[in-house]
Amino acid sequence: MPRYKITIEYDGTNYCGWQIQKNHPTIQEKIENSISNIIGKKIPIIGSGRTDAGVHAIGQVAHFDLEKNFDIFKLQMAINHFLKQEEISIIKTEISPDNFHARFDASERIYQYKILNRRSHPAIDKNKFYHIAHDIDIDLMQKTANYLVGKHDFSSFRDAECQAKTPIRIINYIKFNKIGDIIIIEISGASFLHHMIRNIVGTLIYFSKKNLLAEKIQDILAKKKRSESGPNVSAHGLYFYQVNYN
Amino acid sequence: MPRYKITIEYDGTNYCGWQIQKNHPTIQEKIENSISNIIGKKIPIIGSGRTDAGVHAIGQVAHFDLEKNFDIFKLQMAINHFLKQEEISIIKTEISPDNFHARFDASERIYQYKILNRRSHPAIDKNKFYHIAHDIDIDLMQKTANYLVGKHDFSSFRDAECQAKTPIRIINYIKFNKIGDIIIIEISGASFLHHMIRNIVGTLIYFSKKNLLAEKIQDILAKKKRSESGPNVSAHGLYFYQVNYN
Repeated sequence: MPRYKITIEYDGTNYCGWQIQKNHPTIQEKIENSISNIIGKKIPIIGSGRTDAGVHAIGQVAHFDLEKNFDIFKLQMAINHFLKQEEISIIKTEISPDNFHARFDASERIYQYKILNRRSHPAIDKNKFYHIAHDIDIDLMQKTANYLVGKHDFSSFRDAECQAKTPIRIINYIKFNKIGDIIIIEISGASFLHHMIRNIVGTLIYFSKKNLLAEKIQDILAKKKRSESGPNVSAHGLYFYQVNYN
Repeated sequence: MPRYKITIEYDGTNYCGWQIQKNHPTIQEKIENSISNIIGKKIPIIGSGRTDAGVHAIGQVAHFDLEKNFDIFKLQMAINHFLKQEEISIIKTEISPDNFHARFDASERIYQYKILNRRSHPAIDKNKFYHIAHDIDIDLMQKTANYLVGKHDFSSFRDAECQAKTPIRIINYIKFNKIGDIIIIEISGASFLHHMIRNIVGTLIYFSKKNLLAEKIQDILAKKKRSESGPNVSAHGLYFYQVNYN
C-alpha cells in the first residue's frame, strides 16, 4: 500500500481553512473529494498542519495511502483535474516511505506574512496582503522580533482556543524583506501555537506604531497573558510557505 | 476649474472592462460614482485607453475636471474611500495642466502579459496568469517577436470589431522576462489595435508550440488577415502597465 506525499498551493480566501468541517468548504475536503473521484472511495489525507479560514498556502504538505501504484505525474494530473474550478492546486507529488507522517515528522514550518505598505488599499491581490497605510519602522520591528527568537513560553501570543499541551515553542528566525511597498515577514519554527504568528506580527506592528522600545517585548513574554500583546492581524496576509522534514 | 490626473490599479476579473456600459459593472463607472459621492454630481472621467473585461491595470491613467481646488492627498483618500469594496484603487493623484488629455496626449502605452508556465494550474492568483502546462521556447518567441518591432500594418493581429481608422502601428519593443515559472512579456507602443496584444502573444505561443521559423511571422504580417495569425489568449493574463506622456 504505497504512501503518497503531496505539496499543495491554495488561495484560502473562499475556504474555511484546511480541516474538514460540516457544511463549510475546506481545503482538505476538496482534495479528499478529488481523490475519491479517482479511486471510487473516500480516504483521509493527513496535512502537516491546519490553517485558519482565509490563510493561504504555497507549500502545505499532506500524505495519504492508496491501494494501487500510480504514476506520480498521472496521479497529480488526475487530482488537479477535479480541482480545476477550485483555488487549490497540487504542485508536487512524491512516493514517500511507508512510515512518513506529514504532521509528526515535520521538523520546520515556515510562514510568511505579507504587508502592502502604501496609502492606497490593494486592488490587485485584494485578499493577499494586509494593508497598512501609515509608515512603519521595519528596523524597530526586526529588533523587537529578535527578542522572540529561541525557546520561550509563548502564552502571551496564544489564542484562548489553542489546544496545544505546552505553550513552549522555539522560533528559529524572524526576518524582514522589503520589495517596493511590499513587506514580507518570514517566521520559522518547528511548530506554532494557535494564532501565534498573527499575534506576533500584530504586536510587532503595534511596537512600530507606538514607537516602543524593542526590549519591552520581553516583559510581554514574561507576563504570559494574551491580553499583554498586540492585536491579531488578519488571516489573508498569512501564507503557509514551506514544511521541511529531516 | 482644475484638472486632475489619476493613476489607477485594478483587478479586472469582476468588471466588464474600463468603459461604461448599461447594466454591467465597469471601472470607469465605479470611479465616476465615487467622485459623484464626493462632489454631489456626476462628471465624466477620460481614461488613457479602454481595457476589455478581465484585463487588469497597474497604471491606467484618467483625467477629470472639478470646480473646486482639492488637496490631492485628501481627494485621493476620498475617492478610495468609496472604492474600498471594489478591486479598484487610485494609487496617484496629481494636478495637471488644463489642456492635459489622458488619451490624446499619451505617447507610450506599456502592457505586460503574464504566463504561469508549470504543470499545475494556478491556485493563488487564479485569474492573474495565463496558464501554459507544456514547455515553451522563450528564445524562439523573442526572436519571432523582434520581427514585429517597428512600424507595420497589423491587420493580421486586429480584431474584426476594431474601430481604428488605420491598422498601422509602431511597436517600440517586445521583451521577455522569466522569474521562476512566471514569464512576463512586455510590449510598448504609442497605441494598439483592438485585441492586438492578445493576438500577438497567442501567435508567439503558437510559434513555440509548432516550432515554426521565427521569420515566418513576416508572412503573417504581409497577408494582412486575422485568420493568418494564432489564437487570441485570455484577458486575465493582460495588465495595462504604464502610460507615458511627453
